[in-house]
Amino acid sequence: MKKKITIAIDAMGGDNSPDKTINGVGLFLKKYNKNDDFILKLYGDENKITEKLNKYNVSSNLIEIIHTDSVVSDKETPITAVKNSKNTSMWNSIKSQLDGKSDISLSAGNTGVLLVISRMILKMMDKVSKPALAGLWPNKEGLNVVLDLGANIECDEKNLIDFAELGSALYKSLFPENIAKVSLLNIGSEEIKGTEVLKNAYKKLNLLSKNNNFIFNGYIEGNSIMSGESNVIVTDGFTGNIALKTAEGTAKFITDNLKETLTRNFFTKISLIFSYFSLKKFKSKLDPRKYNGAIFLGLNGPVVKSHGGTDATGFFFSIDLCYRIIKGDLMKQIKNNLDHLSSE
Amino acid sequence: MKKKITIAIDAMGGDNSPDKTINGVGLFLKKYNKNDDFILKLYGDENKITEKLNKYNVSSNLIEIIHTDSVVSDKETPITAVKNSKNTSMWNSIKSQLDGKSDISLSAGNTGVLLVISRMILKMMDKVSKPALAGLWPNKEGLNVVLDLGANIECDEKNLIDFAELGSALYKSLFPENIAKVSLLNIGSEEIKGTEVLKNAYKKLNLLSKNNNFIFNGYIEGNSIMSGESNVIVTDGFTGNIALKTAEGTAKFITDNLKETLTRNFFTKISLIFSYFSLKKFKSKLDPRKYNGAIFLGLNGPVVKSHGGTDATGFFFSIDLCYRIIKGDLMKQIKNNLDHLSSE
Repeated sequence: MKKKITIAIDAMGGDNSPDKTINGVGLFLKKYNKNDDFILKLYGDENKITEKLNKYNVSSNLIEIIHTDSVVSDKETPITAVKNSKNTSMWNSIKSQLDGKSDISLSAGNTGVLLVISRMILKMMDKVSKPALAGLWPNKEGLNVVLDLGANIECDEKNLIDFAELGSALYKSLFPENIAKVSLLNIGSEEIKGTEVLKNAYKKLNLLSKNNNFIFNGYIEGNSIMSGESNVIVTDGFTGNIALKTAEGTAKFITDNLKETLTRNFFTKISLIFSYFSLKKFKSKLDPRKYNGAIFLGLNGPVVKSHGGTDATGFFFSIDLCYRIIKGDLMKQIKNNLDHLSSE
Repeated sequence: MKKKITIAIDAMGGDNSPDKTINGVGLFLKKYNKNDDFILKLYGDENKITEKLNKYNVSSNLIEIIHTDSVVSDKETPITAVKNSKNTSMWNSIKSQLDGKSDISLSAGNTGVLLVISRMILKMMDKVSKPALAGLWPNKEGLNVVLDLGANIECDEKNLIDFAELGSALYKSLFPENIAKVSLLNIGSEEIKGTEVLKNAYKKLNLLSKNNNFIFNGYIEGNSIMSGESNVIVTDGFTGNIALKTAEGTAKFITDNLKETLTRNFFTKISLIFSYFSLKKFKSKLDPRKYNGAIFLGLNGPVVKSHGGTDATGFFFSIDLCYRIIKGDLMKQIKNNLDHLSSE
């Protein structure tokens, strides 16, 4: 029998947990009610978790509860947390990977603490110099992987090359039928543009792309991130974070304006009757909950960070992301890519 | 009699010029047909300009044509252009500022060449270490000034502080009734976040804001650029360029999707009848032509760069921008701000 996909879930982290996490677990079980190739391990206060499982009518032999005494608070800093977090749901869910008890872990808790203790527990892979936080971002053709989104504010060319290999491995685990097409985010598409770090990374990626891990499409500008010409966008964590948040802010600005426009008067309200279902689809396509979950890559095991403020639906999407990543054998894809890197 | 606002226009630069530039001039004259406090100096091929003035029925004693023999081509690089551009419309329009014949110059031509020859002709102001390219960006309350948009890919804290002073001077020249509120673009809003350069700039701006040139609002994240909490957003040219283009790409992605949504079927097309005028206003608010024109700041005279690909309406908005900047006495505002800087 094939080994089950085991997802370690920090049931306590994030706003309004364990309500949203357990409700999200329920949505996941509902979607995959015909599958039994997974186990969800829920880390947290056993009483509270049981209470919420009852509240949301969630019952399945694919769930296990592992009791932990405490929770990483939002006020904890990475430095204090290392000392204080040993009994927390976050720490123990990650540690379960080290002990071979799970394949991936997921938390909606304190991001800074999650990054630090993930790295401390799982350690970096031998061939990786810095781990990266990768996110999913819609484009015209489907989805992009974008990394780094903020784990490393300063990066050298070696880091960017690692990110390209890690990102394309993630892309292939999620979309096995597609080809990873890598671009470096820059302020122009000509070869001579950008910093020395980018120019050096460009040259190296051009060579590496001959290994067939990915196609290297050269530089991409901010306005083409969503064009679909590439699907793995590589950048340093400072730029990636600014780009992601600027896109979020722009989307919010436009949709707020649109909402105001379409509810302005009697006539626009009538128009809503005729466009209701189409606008609903439009809204659904842009729903940020669908892209919830940043993947921490480069450690000896993947860790997924859900938005702290998301709801049950958003949390469901991040469980789904974990499931698909492991089904696509992320760690094997990463090892393959890094082997190519070292044979260069 | 008060001196007239004199705008030197490169009539030949950009796609489809002098058609769009002259058509844009016509739109400007139409808007300000009650004013006579300005002169538009048109640099370029006299025959072609005259032909287009006739074509678009533009006639005014507020126009002067200054004949130039050649045009900076799009293929010219900054290095070759310095040698080849002395007789061009771009060079001569900028040079007119040095000769005291105009207050500001405007071109839709080759950006790289424009930045280099502007700097060469007008020279940097004594107290400025690097000039910056500033743009206008809509926010919830009105408009932001954002800088640098790509003139300097690497910046130190002195540069960022100069940008804050230059940007708030520009803001005050455009919106004399408002207060400039400066933020530094960063990946978090806490004081401890970001690079050393940002942390040092933060401390210095905190002190400088006591001079009442501007209010310093600390760090701002990408998702709040358009929230209206600040109106002068300061960043290095690499990050600013990525942020601006990412916002453009996101806006295009969303509006393309919306357009497809609202023309999808019979019902959505009916809905358009009811929401037509409101959607037109919505579209107009987001029209990028309204924000056309990046302002090159920190030289001994302002130079405005219009998008090369814009149309007559877009070019009209950049002429309007020039007019408002000089009406608001930009150079005096800059000198005031820089004086405060050196008295610190």
